[in-house]
Amino acid sequence: MEELFSKVLHVTVKYRDSEERKANIRVTIEQSLSPVHKKDLLVRLTDNVDPYFLFNLTISEEDFQSLKAQQGLLIDFATFPQKFIELLNLCYSEQDVDSPRFLLHLSCQSPVPEGSANLTIIETNAFKHLNHLSLRLAHGSDKEVKEYLAVCLSSLKAEKQALDMKLKKTEDDLSRQLSYAQQ
Amino acid sequence: MEELFSKVLHVTVKYRDSEERKANIRVTIEQSLSPVHKKDLLVRLTDNVDPYFLFNLTISEEDFQSLKAQQGLLIDFATFPQKFIELLNLCYSEQDVDSPRFLLHLSCQSPVPEGSANLTIIETNAFKHLNHLSLRLAHGSDKEVKEYLAVCLSSLKAEKQALDMKLKKTEDDLSRQLSYAQQ
Repeated sequence: MEELFSKVLHVTVKYRDSEERKANIRVTIEQSLSPVHKKDLLVRLTDNVDPYFLFNLTISEEDFQSLKAQQGLLIDFATFPQKFIELLNLCYSEQDVDSPRFLLHLSCQSPVPEGSANLTIIETNAFKHLNHLSLRLAHGSDKEVKEYLAVCLSSLKAEKQALDMKLKKTEDDLSRQLSYAQQ
Repeated sequence: MEELFSKVLHVTVKYRDSEERKANIRVTIEQSLSPVHKKDLLVRLTDNVDPYFLFNLTISEEDFQSLKAQQGLLIDFATFPQKFIELLNLCYSEQDVDSPRFLLHLSCQSPVPEGSANLTIIETNAFKHLNHLSLRLAHGSDKEVKEYLAVCLSSLKAEKQALDMKLKKTEDDLSRQLSYAQQ
């Protein structure tokens, strides 16, 4: 898997029967390097404050052809990742603006993060909302969430260990300087 | 749930068709406080280096009666936790000794940590191995492992945050002392 994109984006999340809420969702796009699933795209949404929040979508070249027909896309599979990332970057660059032109919406069929959800990139102008792209993602199974959490845990452990070492080093350095200065 | 015991113990682990290995396994015993499952005991084994390693056993008063009959125990359910913990503490106190008298064995039916496994507390004397207690634990489901990992992740995040603050405070304190000493 090669990571093409990974950023935390403001997303308006709407679950069935609940109010919309703003969430900071990490959107990750990876591309398969395996010879069998060549160039398959994996889109993943995760939420740092909710360990069980995990939505996935794999887009093969075949899936892309139906997506293209369905949503009237004018590009081919090879250029799709780049255009998709451009749209996400437009959302990213405008997300701290008062009324951003590009917005991300996630609407979930169920009242909690499970089942499937639609991620939509919307351009808002004075006249109407324009849907640039809409993707249907599936919530991760228990097994997928388990594997995702194991990866999170392992990287957090490494970060904590690095911090532990930094603390030790800082204490050593500064007390050495201090005892030198006090002489 | 009230935690009665939680220690990292040396356990000899044997999977089917593989060599025995020594592992540091956290053994946790909790007791239910809910009025429905009153006094149910939950025994849990986890391994800090393997996020997917999770074995559970719930012992209700009824389960205990068959365990008692089967293994010829002479105690009742109310004193079982205390005796069980005494045995674990005997293992714990001897685990850094060259030839400990009390040992913990975990034998798993499958070649990897899954399915069920038997945890046995064994006393070794010159004459024979004596099984003090043998419990059959089930490997956690994907959902249980997922929930366990979410708890690990959340406590690790809190530890990391505390460390971050400690680092900041150490830097501040020592540079203040340093600038004072240098004046």
